[in-house]
Amino acid sequence: MTTKPEIGFDIAAEVGMNLSEVGTPALIVDLDAFERNVSTLKQKLQAAGVRLRAHAKTHKSVDIARYQIEHGGACGICCQKVSEAEAMVAGGIGDVMISNQVVDAHKIDRLARLATRARILVCVDDAANVDALSAAASRHGVTLECLVEIDCGAGRCGVEPGASAVTLAQRIDAADGLLFAGLQAYQGSAQHIRDYRQRGAAIDAAVQMTRETIDLLAGAGLDCAIVAGAGTGTVDFEAASGIYNEMQCGSYIFMDADYQRVLDARGRALSEFDNALFIWTSIMSVAKPGQAVCDAGLKVTSAESGLPRIFDADDLEYSGISDEHGVIDDPANRLRLNDKLKLIPGHCDPTCNLHDWYIGVRQGRVECLWPVNARGLAL
Amino acid sequence: MTTKPEIGFDIAAEVGMNLSEVGTPALIVDLDAFERNVSTLKQKLQAAGVRLRAHAKTHKSVDIARYQIEHGGACGICCQKVSEAEAMVAGGIGDVMISNQVVDAHKIDRLARLATRARILVCVDDAANVDALSAAASRHGVTLECLVEIDCGAGRCGVEPGASAVTLAQRIDAADGLLFAGLQAYQGSAQHIRDYRQRGAAIDAAVQMTRETIDLLAGAGLDCAIVAGAGTGTVDFEAASGIYNEMQCGSYIFMDADYQRVLDARGRALSEFDNALFIWTSIMSVAKPGQAVCDAGLKVTSAESGLPRIFDADDLEYSGISDEHGVIDDPANRLRLNDKLKLIPGHCDPTCNLHDWYIGVRQGRVECLWPVNARGLAL
Repeated sequence: MTTKPEIGFDIAAEVGMNLSEVGTPALIVDLDAFERNVSTLKQKLQAAGVRLRAHAKTHKSVDIARYQIEHGGACGICCQKVSEAEAMVAGGIGDVMISNQVVDAHKIDRLARLATRARILVCVDDAANVDALSAAASRHGVTLECLVEIDCGAGRCGVEPGASAVTLAQRIDAADGLLFAGLQAYQGSAQHIRDYRQRGAAIDAAVQMTRETIDLLAGAGLDCAIVAGAGTGTVDFEAASGIYNEMQCGSYIFMDADYQRVLDARGRALSEFDNALFIWTSIMSVAKPGQAVCDAGLKVTSAESGLPRIFDADDLEYSGISDEHGVIDDPANRLRLNDKLKLIPGHCDPTCNLHDWYIGVRQGRVECLWPVNARGLAL
Repeated sequence: MTTKPEIGFDIAAEVGMNLSEVGTPALIVDLDAFERNVSTLKQKLQAAGVRLRAHAKTHKSVDIARYQIEHGGACGICCQKVSEAEAMVAGGIGDVMISNQVVDAHKIDRLARLATRARILVCVDDAANVDALSAAASRHGVTLECLVEIDCGAGRCGVEPGASAVTLAQRIDAADGLLFAGLQAYQGSAQHIRDYRQRGAAIDAAVQMTRETIDLLAGAGLDCAIVAGAGTGTVDFEAASGIYNEMQCGSYIFMDADYQRVLDARGRALSEFDNALFIWTSIMSVAKPGQAVCDAGLKVTSAESGLPRIFDADDLEYSGISDEHGVIDDPANRLRLNDKLKLIPGHCDPTCNLHDWYIGVRQGRVECLWPVNARGLAL
């Protein structure tokens, strides 16, 4: 076994550099656009009278989570994994929901231990899991707030809405060390539906199932302090639903090429949030007419939701991706060796997960370096 | 700016553990299968009388590169980036080809500096780049061995075969600090052609172009010490070509789901190399009949070349992927919470690039932990 060698640059930038000096490929954040996005959602949700619990799975960064809480109106954050939550609590975040199931005994123990240091909420969809969480909470002398996850259309985790959810909520309510906190009713598969009406219809159906479940719970004497869900693609619908009260948007801070294909009520690309996340890339080959090759491929930008787009250059198209290369159609042959471009990643969350650092840039100057704290953590 | 917190487990395993105790999701290597693959290619290429220069972009691991050199007949390794090469030289590898262009001034300087410590080869497809490499080599008092990259069908980097290649080779030959080492003639787009004859035809065309270029170079008094190319999908063809003498296979050590769709001469999946790379995953939700959800999604396995496959379980199918989840069709409802499965990643190289550690397992016991040394490095 060897240890990871320290070999100089693991960041391609220093604070104070001009963007033009930043090494490629690198992940950069346009801080002005990022702050605008944070402010836009804050105002929208304050106006709607609902809370924001920003999703940290998008960015895995303590600095960004702090900014969302201090400046973006977030009451806390969501994480998908225990190790992500540990990184966030270690960074000073005091209110974390695992918007996911935690079923491994070792992870459950770590989760309960974490609740000695922060408010911890977690989702459940299994009775035996409720018992295991209860035992761990009792062992560590903590309270874990549990939400029943219902499947309101996404077809992934979660019990059926209705009676199954009530049975599980009652089990939580009766369990030592657990507090029934409400419903997790995230309709994940609706987020990227292109058409506005179809997206609205998917959330209408989710709202209907969630409302019926809330009513059944109320009939059983169980109140839902939290009714959680929504993402960047559908948040307007949940915020206006009258039943959802905690929004779990993640991508709104950065946006991506796939979200640009999601349309608003007038059939235009969602435009209220700006692209704030980019891959900074260099042209490394211009050997063929009409084409250039850049140094950003699959190892710095995800492609399962489509190829990256080139920012602010309508005459160029990123047309092919491989592990370390991107082929760019350049019909006018205007690109030269070492020219730099900004790429809009196809899908922001898995792209951030490829990088160790965000390079924060404002008006062409590197202003901050933020580690992707929770990347690469086990469990 | 914060620093990355040390929060306990960043590896989900310890040497000596049973595989069943290893935390999920995690990247595991079946050491018996890995060693068989290394041995299979070594014997094949020794029989063909050609060299292996194993591609380290697949694994980014010093331990694996060393094993390929010490036990697998590799004369050295390939890397795609300067930072990868730096990690490998820091780990004791003495012979590294960058099978790619290095055009940024800072990277060129680092490459030349690296040549004070190891044999360094690099590919070029641009005259100005030759001059920049020459200046850096002279400045550091080193020799950089340069291969002219020709585009023999992949349509990415590389000059046209023939006269353009000769002109560039002459420029290298005349440049201080550079040595003309031969041709890089990698037909990357042929590797995953499903049909055996079509794959062979693509390499036949590449061989033809490469041969003509070699002959033209010879006419100009320039010998090709190295004629490099080939990958796991086509190596039989290049090895038998009579002109290629250095093979750059990478994926053969691990294989993946996409390579299992590449067929041999009899129309069967390529079977000479075994699956040695797996995502170790747990079932985290069984709330719906006929379906289970596992904890391995896009953040631990790449999906741009297709979904992962479930190893050794014909009755189960990984049917849907999202950031942290995989949906598994389980018609017999046999999966239980916390059951463990091995997934074969869709594409090995970008999957390895998501992880910080390989967990080496032999017959159910963790035998070694190998860092993914060159992951996440800038430049």
